[in-house]
Amino acid sequence: MNQINKLKILNDPIYGFITIPNTLIYDLIQHPYFQRLRRISQMGMSYLVYPGAHHTRFHHALGCMHIMQKAVQTLRFKEVEISEDEENALYIAILLHDIGHGPFSHAMEHSIVESVHHEEISLFFMNELNREFDGKLSLAIQIFKGEYHRRFMLQLISSQLDMDRMDYLKRDSFYTGVAEGNINSERLIQMMHVVDDVLVIEEKGIYSVEQFLVARRLMYWQAYLHKTSLVAELTLTKILKRAKELTQMGTMLPCSEPLQFFMQNKIDSSGFDNPNLKKFALLDDFDIVSAIKSWQFHDDFVLSSLSKMIINRDLLKIKMVTEKVSKEHMTDLKSKMMNLHNLSEKEVDYFIFKGKIKNQAYNKTGEPIHIYKKDKTIEDVVEASDQLNLKALSKPVTKYFICFPKVLLGS
Amino acid sequence: MNQINKLKILNDPIYGFITIPNTLIYDLIQHPYFQRLRRISQMGMSYLVYPGAHHTRFHHALGCMHIMQKAVQTLRFKEVEISEDEENALYIAILLHDIGHGPFSHAMEHSIVESVHHEEISLFFMNELNREFDGKLSLAIQIFKGEYHRRFMLQLISSQLDMDRMDYLKRDSFYTGVAEGNINSERLIQMMHVVDDVLVIEEKGIYSVEQFLVARRLMYWQAYLHKTSLVAELTLTKILKRAKELTQMGTMLPCSEPLQFFMQNKIDSSGFDNPNLKKFALLDDFDIVSAIKSWQFHDDFVLSSLSKMIINRDLLKIKMVTEKVSKEHMTDLKSKMMNLHNLSEKEVDYFIFKGKIKNQAYNKTGEPIHIYKKDKTIEDVVEASDQLNLKALSKPVTKYFICFPKVLLGS
Amino acid sequence: MNQINKLKILNDPIYGFITIPNTLIYDLIQHPYFQRLRRISQMGMSYLVYPGAHHTRFHHALGCMHIMQKAVQTLRFKEVEISEDEENALYIAILLHDIGHGPFSHAMEHSIVESVHHEEISLFFMNELNREFDGKLSLAIQIFKGEYHRRFMLQLISSQLDMDRMDYLKRDSFYTGVAEGNINSERLIQMMHVVDDVLVIEEKGIYSVEQFLVARRLMYWQAYLHKTSLVAELTLTKILKRAKELTQMGTMLPCSEPLQFFMQNKIDSSGFDNPNLKKFALLDDFDIVSAIKSWQFHDDFVLSSLSKMIINRDLLKIKMVTEKVSKEHMTDLKSKMMNLHNLSEKEVDYFIFKGKIKNQAYNKTGEPIHIYKKDKTIEDVVEASDQLNLKALSKPVTKYFICFPKVLLGS
Amino acid sequence: MNQINKLKILNDPIYGFITIPNTLIYDLIQHPYFQRLRRISQMGMSYLVYPGAHHTRFHHALGCMHIMQKAVQTLRFKEVEISEDEENALYIAILLHDIGHGPFSHAMEHSIVESVHHEEISLFFMNELNREFDGKLSLAIQIFKGEYHRRFMLQLISSQLDMDRMDYLKRDSFYTGVAEGNINSERLIQMMHVVDDVLVIEEKGIYSVEQFLVARRLMYWQAYLHKTSLVAELTLTKILKRAKELTQMGTMLPCSEPLQFFMQNKIDSSGFDNPNLKKFALLDDFDIVSAIKSWQFHDDFVLSSLSKMIINRDLLKIKMVTEKVSKEHMTDLKSKMMNLHNLSEKEVDYFIFKGKIKNQAYNKTGEPIHIYKKDKTIEDVVEASDQLNLKALSKPVTKYFICFPKVLLGS
Repeated sequence: MNQINKLKILNDPIYGFITIPNTLIYDLIQHPYFQRLRRISQMGMSYLVYPGAHHTRFHHALGCMHIMQKAVQTLRFKEVEISEDEENALYIAILLHDIGHGPFSHAMEHSIVESVHHEEISLFFMNELNREFDGKLSLAIQIFKGEYHRRFMLQLISSQLDMDRMDYLKRDSFYTGVAEGNINSERLIQMMHVVDDVLVIEEKGIYSVEQFLVARRLMYWQAYLHKTSLVAELTLTKILKRAKELTQMGTMLPCSEPLQFFMQNKIDSSGFDNPNLKKFALLDDFDIVSAIKSWQFHDDFVLSSLSKMIINRDLLKIKMVTEKVSKEHMTDLKSKMMNLHNLSEKEVDYFIFKGKIKNQAYNKTGEPIHIYKKDKTIEDVVEASDQLNLKALSKPVTKYFICFPKVLLGS
Repeated sequence: MNQINKLKILNDPIYGFITIPNTLIYDLIQHPYFQRLRRISQMGMSYLVYPGAHHTRFHHALGCMHIMQKAVQTLRFKEVEISEDEENALYIAILLHDIGHGPFSHAMEHSIVESVHHEEISLFFMNELNREFDGKLSLAIQIFKGEYHRRFMLQLISSQLDMDRMDYLKRDSFYTGVAEGNINSERLIQMMHVVDDVLVIEEKGIYSVEQFLVARRLMYWQAYLHKTSLVAELTLTKILKRAKELTQMGTMLPCSEPLQFFMQNKIDSSGFDNPNLKKFALLDDFDIVSAIKSWQFHDDFVLSSLSKMIINRDLLKIKMVTEKVSKEHMTDLKSKMMNLHNLSEKEVDYFIFKGKIKNQAYNKTGEPIHIYKKDKTIEDVVEASDQLNLKALSKPVTKYFICFPKVLLGS
Repeated sequence: MNQINKLKILNDPIYGFITIPNTLIYDLIQHPYFQRLRRISQMGMSYLVYPGAHHTRFHHALGCMHIMQKAVQTLRFKEVEISEDEENALYIAILLHDIGHGPFSHAMEHSIVESVHHEEISLFFMNELNREFDGKLSLAIQIFKGEYHRRFMLQLISSQLDMDRMDYLKRDSFYTGVAEGNINSERLIQMMHVVDDVLVIEEKGIYSVEQFLVARRLMYWQAYLHKTSLVAELTLTKILKRAKELTQMGTMLPCSEPLQFFMQNKIDSSGFDNPNLKKFALLDDFDIVSAIKSWQFHDDFVLSSLSKMIINRDLLKIKMVTEKVSKEHMTDLKSKMMNLHNLSEKEVDYFIFKGKIKNQAYNKTGEPIHIYKKDKTIEDVVEASDQLNLKALSKPVTKYFICFPKVLLGS
Repeated sequence: MNQINKLKILNDPIYGFITIPNTLIYDLIQHPYFQRLRRISQMGMSYLVYPGAHHTRFHHALGCMHIMQKAVQTLRFKEVEISEDEENALYIAILLHDIGHGPFSHAMEHSIVESVHHEEISLFFMNELNREFDGKLSLAIQIFKGEYHRRFMLQLISSQLDMDRMDYLKRDSFYTGVAEGNINSERLIQMMHVVDDVLVIEEKGIYSVEQFLVARRLMYWQAYLHKTSLVAELTLTKILKRAKELTQMGTMLPCSEPLQFFMQNKIDSSGFDNPNLKKFALLDDFDIVSAIKSWQFHDDFVLSSLSKMIINRDLLKIKMVTEKVSKEHMTDLKSKMMNLHNLSEKEVDYFIFKGKIKNQAYNKTGEPIHIYKKDKTIEDVVEASDQLNLKALSKPVTKYFICFPKVLLGS
């Protein structure tokens, strides 16, 4: 293909058009590792609550790159110097920041992989691609790892007000239809500046930052931690745990070869050398959902029951409570279920379980969002906000829940 | 016109279509008193900052009626009984709740009328219309005055989460382009319920309420109290004050006859009997702006200078400060200006002045927004919010400002 | 679950909220046959061109039901009588009209099933569901089959201006970001009326009908028949054909059990009795994509090459031409490819092939779109349009194409 | 003001943000001649039909400049050379192309001015501004007059697919809520190219061009020539005609001084030298509407009756017919009205009149829209379109109408 043809434009219902800025970026997007993201849903099982939420990590990554282009443009307009190499590195870093995500990321920890964070895996992918592309990703990797001296570049990629969050909040609000979760990324970017290589927001943008934090909080409780999404995701985790258990005990479950591999082996971050990385790169939502579809008909009562729940959206009952669920209540429910279906203690844990969820709209211990005041001083947004009392927003909120089969309703 | 033709549908860029539910409503909308609202801008002089903000009080009133229809529908679906008469009264009351607004409402107090609140004038209009329409507005008036026993009906019309606020926030955000000020009125309405004749919001809507309050706060600081809108409005007030002063001293200023009348007479609420109400009903933005256009060329230096500022959008400089402006600074600026233009002390006050603005996102002393919890108890949203610390939102924020001519910049 | 809980509301980014009108509809939506549609993409492989186009047939079906509610409301407002039973039947019929779609519908004809149209399969499903739901779907089925005496009801479900087209055009335009393909379904519905049990559009809606037809034409050429979607879909067809061929010759390909079944057996419409229908109901996009993912690594050169093309979006070259491709050109290309990869004549046909696509914006031979003129006469839109010359729009347009591997570019 | 402060950003609900590219443009926008456009409605009296249509020529001009920036960017990306001076001239020319519009343009011809086209007046303004700005507008004027050798630059400003039309169609569709009149200006611009200094659209954009033409046609019939807008505008014309008549006969009507001047004098294009241009620059919607408001109470029956119709939106009845209205019918209606109100023959013509409107979606005799085909040839879109039969679109459509008072309904 000739060079000019690679300078493609992609349609995006949110931004209109997304432009691919150069052929290196084009080639990265075309790489099977990146194309894989087309088959990984951005919001996991949330489409069971929000039927429009089928957008992918592929689309999100492109969206991030698009607004990074806007950020670079704005900062240069304000006379922040960004070299062409740095610019390009920013695009690559944001494009690949999530490439390490597996299918249903949270669900697969402790089942597919063992305690490997997706950012670590992203780094494995970046290094691998850097080899394939003759070192052209080195600066991007340096920035991504926080080893580049210009700190704001990392902040654009990973901070409490980065391009990642700006795109996903906007995109998730758009595709779920939770319209009030929308943020004005365009204005936030317009308000960005760099002082002493630190990313700051001009004071007049403070209300948009507040709105951003409140919108994020809303999206957490209304979408990401919605009780139905939550129970679906937990059920998925249980399914994969059960499947791994059965596999480890010698049962050969029908599933794709790469998924089989991760069921049979315990891979932690030390095991992510190349052959395993390549295997991991073959996994996506389709392996998981297809497996669950066939497991619906498996002999194992636990595996088939849970699988049917997901496939037919006939989920466990979930109750949110403000206090921890008592041991007695759990024991009581479990014994009823054990009697009902003749289950062992181990088995019943797959159907009746409790837990807690936590969210924090703003993390005071992490890197703050810096407000650049008219008097040229810089303040943490928590201090700069005159009224919203963002201190309150930085206190984590915890909610407790209990899940159990519908047959036990009323028990 | 036959009856069927009156059942019109109006285009609205926000809601799609607005349906006029019956012929009485149609006739009210057709009344010159209501048609007048087509010539009164909803956001006053804000179009000097947001060029799209030319929407009118007419359009807003229709929008309110539209979402009131949705509210009635939702409440009835939840088996809240609302009779046909009550339904109709709700539509009339919300349609007419702002009919008493004059042009540039805030600017005209103490100049056109003397300390008469627009809600009082709305009531004068409603009573007058009630006479014309043979008492068909009686129930609407009763609700509007808070004299009807079903309290939620007043709350739908006038409270901290009423149809008025829902429409104007959405509409102002839309027309200004301050996208992050958008709220999800549809969801807020879906979450509404009535318990013991009190309007409540179901608990799962609490995040939307929080977002609503934060969006409102944002719209205040970013739009309604934007410093450029503010200085424009204050200048307008000064112009009308000066004009009244000159008129009272015997100078005949060119302006429309109704405006002339209000310049010559001091009308307070006791003077709003019918002939005066009819005169008032002739006033709209066109009288004011036309007058200012001709006053640009008047001999009086103060009047012409200020008028030119508005017409050519060449405004006074305004500075927002966190502390009160000192007397010394004022005196200093004033004496410079007096020398520069040979002005009297009284005259210089038209060019150099200070003040403060105040906003409160949530008013704890007023009627609270009630959250209807899953355990069937009702709580003030301030207590029910787990994290946002809405208490902080209920503390008024005050900002100070000073206005002065650009020639004094650097003084 | 109690009855009230079933009266759910679903978020939709297009319409805001979709209300499920009653428990029968709720139960149909919950049925595994319907839930399956969550796993079938509305636009097949189009997401390879438009990364946002991951919406599903599930969501589309709900959208259709939503606008059917609007249509019923509008028609009743115009005093068209529609009984509660008829209303309900309309919702059921539109909800289920596409339930017979398999994954990548067009691709699977002649491979998964043999010449069975998806509407036939929809009917099989409806009949089956009617048995399960004790005959409650009978009227819906009668309407769907065109056997009900009130013709406009069928027209609402299946005609050149039905709820199906209105929703999918709007939805596909929305998710692809092809903004100019958007239509105003709300206005079109407002303009609907029924005269002598025939669906008509009031004359003043004629420009919206024209715009609808032109938008539809645009969506065909720009999205549905976009050359990249086209070559992807054709490649998919070839893959399934090859897979069936290999299976029939005794090769056991890795894939899900239901897909295996349809590879092994030739099922035509006569074979759609219950056990086969149940098998068919297990098929969705996940079976197909998962199979192709594993077939990437199969020994068969044809199967693995084509599979890789889809998975990595590294497709055959496709050229659109205005005239039929000559035999000579085909032979020439094929012989080059045969030499290059040592392929048989049969095998090379999988890589080099030609064809044509056809589209007709308006079908004059089908049931016309009726315009209801002010003089109470009814006219076909083609006659009623004063200028657009819709006659031209009813002439089918044919385009020819040829597909071949990129290595042959320049040959 | 320092230079950097002038690099302002303006909110636009349609495009998000509009950037003012340099200080010359900033100063032009600040000029009273341009600020005047804030007080001239883009769609005249259309807000009587579409309550949201209060957007101004000011906003439209800025919108045009914004998409011109996009066009320059796209063309440069395609390696069309555009110098900085040319770029700037394009922005100036499009910004000022409509500056000659008076209030309610069409209505004021033959009443305020005598047969002077607004483009001529725009040129008077440009020349005047060029003097004030020391010749910095010379290139812009050259382009505007079609005297610059690079023809595509004029085409961007004034042709059948210029920035003007792209902005106003999009904007008018947005503010009226006629959603299906929306066009995809972003895509149309993406498809632009320049071949031999002629503006062309790449072939793959042809469907967007078709949709653009059909949307334009729809906007004409549904909005610009909507019968209610039409009758309002015609009534306005009659009012101004009557006012001029009365003034010329010596009656002194209350109105602003500049309007007075144009009532007293017959100004044709030869009279547009500086003092008159300055007077013209003082006129806007506020002069007209204010005058009409006071004329409601004038002694002249004709003037007051028509004025009340506009102010209270209580308009004449208008009937659209396909054939010319017969003389007999006119005479009959007129004599009834003369008897009813004791009017002269001359006076009755103000209440009962007929006429025709004409629209042509595409003008074949003007400069064509050029399609740039893949084989590098250029074709008129009418020839290039395979199906839409744009030939039909280039035939003018004529409709006839008659206006008369409602009291004569049924006569």
